[in-house]
Amino acid sequence: MTIHKNFKGIEKTVFGRGSFNQLGEIVEAQRHQNDQFMLYLVDNYFKGKDLARQIPAQPGDMVMYIDVDKHEPTTQQIDMIRDSVKATRGIPAAAIGIGGGSILDIAKAVSLMFTNEGSSQLYQGLNLVKKPGIYHIGVPTISGTGAEVSMTAVLTGPEKKLGLKCEWTVFNQVVLDPDLIASVPRNWWFYTGMDTYIHCIESENGILNNAYSHAFAEQALKLCREIYIGKDSGQTAANDDKLMVASLMGGLSLTYSEVGVCHALSYGLSKILGTRHCYANCLAFNHLEDFYPEGVKEFKTMIKQHDIDLPQGLSKDWTDEQVTAMAKVSYNLSHMWNHAIGSDWKDKITVDKIKDLFYRL
Amino acid sequence: MTIHKNFKGIEKTVFGRGSFNQLGEIVEAQRHQNDQFMLYLVDNYFKGKDLARQIPAQPGDMVMYIDVDKHEPTTQQIDMIRDSVKATRGIPAAAIGIGGGSILDIAKAVSLMFTNEGSSQLYQGLNLVKKPGIYHIGVPTISGTGAEVSMTAVLTGPEKKLGLKCEWTVFNQVVLDPDLIASVPRNWWFYTGMDTYIHCIESENGILNNAYSHAFAEQALKLCREIYIGKDSGQTAANDDKLMVASLMGGLSLTYSEVGVCHALSYGLSKILGTRHCYANCLAFNHLEDFYPEGVKEFKTMIKQHDIDLPQGLSKDWTDEQVTAMAKVSYNLSHMWNHAIGSDWKDKITVDKIKDLFYRL
Repeated sequence: MTIHKNFKGIEKTVFGRGSFNQLGEIVEAQRHQNDQFMLYLVDNYFKGKDLARQIPAQPGDMVMYIDVDKHEPTTQQIDMIRDSVKATRGIPAAAIGIGGGSILDIAKAVSLMFTNEGSSQLYQGLNLVKKPGIYHIGVPTISGTGAEVSMTAVLTGPEKKLGLKCEWTVFNQVVLDPDLIASVPRNWWFYTGMDTYIHCIESENGILNNAYSHAFAEQALKLCREIYIGKDSGQTAANDDKLMVASLMGGLSLTYSEVGVCHALSYGLSKILGTRHCYANCLAFNHLEDFYPEGVKEFKTMIKQHDIDLPQGLSKDWTDEQVTAMAKVSYNLSHMWNHAIGSDWKDKITVDKIKDLFYRL
Repeated sequence: MTIHKNFKGIEKTVFGRGSFNQLGEIVEAQRHQNDQFMLYLVDNYFKGKDLARQIPAQPGDMVMYIDVDKHEPTTQQIDMIRDSVKATRGIPAAAIGIGGGSILDIAKAVSLMFTNEGSSQLYQGLNLVKKPGIYHIGVPTISGTGAEVSMTAVLTGPEKKLGLKCEWTVFNQVVLDPDLIASVPRNWWFYTGMDTYIHCIESENGILNNAYSHAFAEQALKLCREIYIGKDSGQTAANDDKLMVASLMGGLSLTYSEVGVCHALSYGLSKILGTRHCYANCLAFNHLEDFYPEGVKEFKTMIKQHDIDLPQGLSKDWTDEQVTAMAKVSYNLSHMWNHAIGSDWKDKITVDKIKDLFYRL
């Protein structure tokens, strides 16, 4: 008997221009919980900017600016945030992440670690978390990762890059305000949007794809094409609206399906070289025409249309040890290979074959 | 400042063939609540059928078969179910609705009325309910109404046909098993699927439509076309999968948009003549080419392709008093007219004009 996934959805969603102004009312409804202060986790990019002044923090609330440019979220970083907040102020009423996928994953992970003891690296995997976290709210300021809807908070630990994945990871509330993504730098607008595009291509091309994941992927792909191909493409207000919905739908598609070869390689790049996720995806996807011929062809059209800077020949600067290490990280993501290649994937994919893929980069 | 709707989603969703077999495990996780018995509310159609034997009721659980053929759910009916269960057994751990939109709405309403005092007619409207209901689970056996995802439980009361609408109305859990809709009689497969089609046409054609509602409506319409038009259309397993997803997406589209002229007329028909909702929609939509020219044209193609029995000339048997009463019910649904016609709708729509529409039927 097949067991179908029983998945947790976002509890509450507000979508619309200016909905960030509703955040104050939303957080106040949670103020009675725990030690009655709010923990805002904000991308350092916004320090001193208009958005920072609009955060509805009250006296006693904590606003932590976090630099996510240098590396992906780590288990050590999550533990440190939790320990420092707990030691100085106690347990927040709610954690509010304002930023991109990294900040959203940090907010999800920190929320769980306020109620689960020990290091977050103990909980990397599926359903290892013991208790629900504190109330957590996601406010994306760049769209495409699907972190706003996913039941995973991806962390790089000393041993592996792997998510805290359980139903309690999912946000209690998301605030989707397309105004917040209007000023994203063009390269990152592209790389991050491509995370959704790649999610959908990978979701569609694999054994787990079903009517649910297909319907969401198909519509998210249609939206991506409107945003990135043709005369109405580009960073317009209408396309920002669409990108927020596409990111959500791409994430929902993965609920019943899986990512594939591109994410397997991308995780290797991020784990060994610290490459940021969406950028790593683009670096890898560009060379995966053997697996996703139509998707890669369309991707190259979009790269060209928006004159995106995507370096090649990177592998000439890598040692064979590094490439081997990346390939091993990638090979161990068996759920991705299983989906993309089939249950007999070990007959077809070896660490050496994955190394060859990395050498194309 | 525009206030954007902050909507509650379904908490947990399981989708897939055979997922009905997972219902037992799902309900047992709730058994500790209240008086620790389950209340199954099941469409009378399934009495003695295979599905009835597969209901995972344990000794002490209640299975109530409800006849929804004669009329739409009423406030009196909800009150009676609540009162009789409470008097004989107490408060259930969970209410599980197994059936179509009427049964799902009954399960939602009954769940709220176990914790809110007095008659359900006190709570017809937006956010009038005072407390969360008991845990409630929806298991659709026919698809299209969107009742599985909506935050409303539509009831006909002594004064009006209007939903109990609040965030607590939304199901805690839905089980979407396409196997359950395989044996739906063809006419009802059509009428109920058309509820989704009409939801989307109405959602798209009105002032509230935004990027969120549009993306969901567009994909649900694409699915409806695959299911009801062309050579691969019809009641196939693949189309049953699609219809379950389309119904969900059509419902999600309405989260940020609204129904329109067809639902306004349909509510009048149901309130005055007791006509079942999806059938009433089809009777009305067939004559709304002035408002939805392309949608009505496509609808007629689908009617023809599936040789659906849709009577005309009904109004010759109605008294002018009946038509006036229907038109008044319809006119009072101002949120629908506002969306479909615009905020100046009262300049364009009168009770007499609505009567003319009814006389076309």
